[in-house]
Amino acid sequence: MPTIIETVPNFSEGRRPEVVQAIVEAVRNAPGGARVLDISSDADHNRSVLTLAGEEAQVRASILRLFEAALEHIDLRAHRGEHPRLGAVDVVPFVPVKGVTMADCAGLARSLGKEVADRFRVPVYLYEEAATAEHRRNLAEIRKGEFEGLSRKMKDPLWAPDFGPAEPHPSAGATVIGAREFLIAFNVNLATSDVQIADKIARAIRHSSGGLRYCKAMGVALSERRIAQVSINMVHFKKTPLHRVVEMVKSEAARYGVNVVGSEIVGLVPNDALLAAADFYLRLEDFHVSQVLENRLAEPGE
Amino acid sequence: MPTIIETVPNFSEGRRPEVVQAIVEAVRNAPGGARVLDISSDADHNRSVLTLAGEEAQVRASILRLFEAALEHIDLRAHRGEHPRLGAVDVVPFVPVKGVTMADCAGLARSLGKEVADRFRVPVYLYEEAATAEHRRNLAEIRKGEFEGLSRKMKDPLWAPDFGPAEPHPSAGATVIGAREFLIAFNVNLATSDVQIADKIARAIRHSSGGLRYCKAMGVALSERRIAQVSINMVHFKKTPLHRVVEMVKSEAARYGVNVVGSEIVGLVPNDALLAAADFYLRLEDFHVSQVLENRLAEPGE
Repeated sequence: MPTIIETVPNFSEGRRPEVVQAIVEAVRNAPGGARVLDISSDADHNRSVLTLAGEEAQVRASILRLFEAALEHIDLRAHRGEHPRLGAVDVVPFVPVKGVTMADCAGLARSLGKEVADRFRVPVYLYEEAATAEHRRNLAEIRKGEFEGLSRKMKDPLWAPDFGPAEPHPSAGATVIGAREFLIAFNVNLATSDVQIADKIARAIRHSSGGLRYCKAMGVALSERRIAQVSINMVHFKKTPLHRVVEMVKSEAARYGVNVVGSEIVGLVPNDALLAAADFYLRLEDFHVSQVLENRLAEPGE
Repeated sequence: MPTIIETVPNFSEGRRPEVVQAIVEAVRNAPGGARVLDISSDADHNRSVLTLAGEEAQVRASILRLFEAALEHIDLRAHRGEHPRLGAVDVVPFVPVKGVTMADCAGLARSLGKEVADRFRVPVYLYEEAATAEHRRNLAEIRKGEFEGLSRKMKDPLWAPDFGPAEPHPSAGATVIGAREFLIAFNVNLATSDVQIADKIARAIRHSSGGLRYCKAMGVALSERRIAQVSINMVHFKKTPLHRVVEMVKSEAARYGVNVVGSEIVGLVPNDALLAAADFYLRLEDFHVSQVLENRLAEPGE
């Protein structure tokens, strides 16, 4: 059975289409590379996000090629954008999807981080499940001060990089590489245009204000459809599953006399996240994913 | 993307383990054959059922090997069992699972039927979606009279075989080959030991007594667990989906003040059947199966 690691590298270019295209083409044509599943660029953020998936050697080859191309085309000294960033290749998370553990992905982050630092002279910070200290787990903390403050920040021993030189790459800054769970972007739409209700529901369900541990949420107005939406990031769907969020949103919404009209999965979702929802709602007893025909076929041969 | 056809051949031996094993091993080792996913034998029925899946050429190779082995080991003249049967290899359905149509499977049934008749001198009837006349669609109708009545039945022009000689193979009888939708064996367990309630619910939901078109059902007592069960065959899960059956069982059960305690999938289920349940219960808007990461990876390369 082929194993699957997802990687979602963010690089700091979202305004010059010819540059985005050159970088994407380089990644897409990386020899022995992974499949590029999605590309999204944002001009306000001046940033692009790729989604790739494949076996370990494949994602490694693609990410190394991304560094080559990004260093060739991006100079952070001339970069402006709304999204905080530290480097030309800003963040590279590895996500275990199939047949690999989180430890495998953290190991890949470490070995690739070392290779990036050695080959490109770009300092590397390890984050989330690959972090080497508790204060370095959180991406926002590492990125605080951004590219412009990096030279000073790196002089603080607390913020010495995990790999590479103790000063920023002149044009490419630094890079944050790590391992994390799959993130599902999931929105629930409400039969009301009152965004305050969506906000209240978001506060009820999200971890930061007392809700579900692996759920982030905020209220959003969908002005075109004239409805409000609870916009959700599911950061660990195995521990905080989709159905529990949906049922909690329904219950909180009912308290305001509001119905749920639908929900949306933005981008990609692992098959197992949806199987878990089917398992819950169909009240399956002793269900195992090996009962899924396609999974059985993918099992090692007899 | 590899295509998937499932085939569920039934052969007339379920008492002599050494014979079942010899036949299964022959099928398993068929050169270029399909994966054997499941084997179930029943001594009362004196019958075994294999589940295989693979590409068209693979299932074809496996089924031809099955005929060779079954004809070698089984003599219907000495066969007794509770389950009706017409031949040594009794029934061979082909089921479209992925990237193939029902028409493809009906075509395979026809071409394989002809090859079986030519090579083994076994008369072949085509059934269900491969049937050549309306009165031959139903397996039970074709099998009526069984092996013992076959010689006489075949003299009736209405029951001339689709391929092969107009008289039974002396030891192997005749074979029924066809194409049908995937069958999901699905049971819903009730919080009551009263099997009459399960019977009433079964009558409400099944096609034959006015219920859902592609649903067969009956009430069963699970004496060990002291509960009653609605035992269901879903014969076209795309048109009569799992969630609709579960919701209807819940609603009918509530009318007797009974709850649903759980449900079971017996054997294998196509991934799409469970995704459809997740889609319904999570109220997904504009969801497409290509949003499932594993499906995206399996799509043809860029």
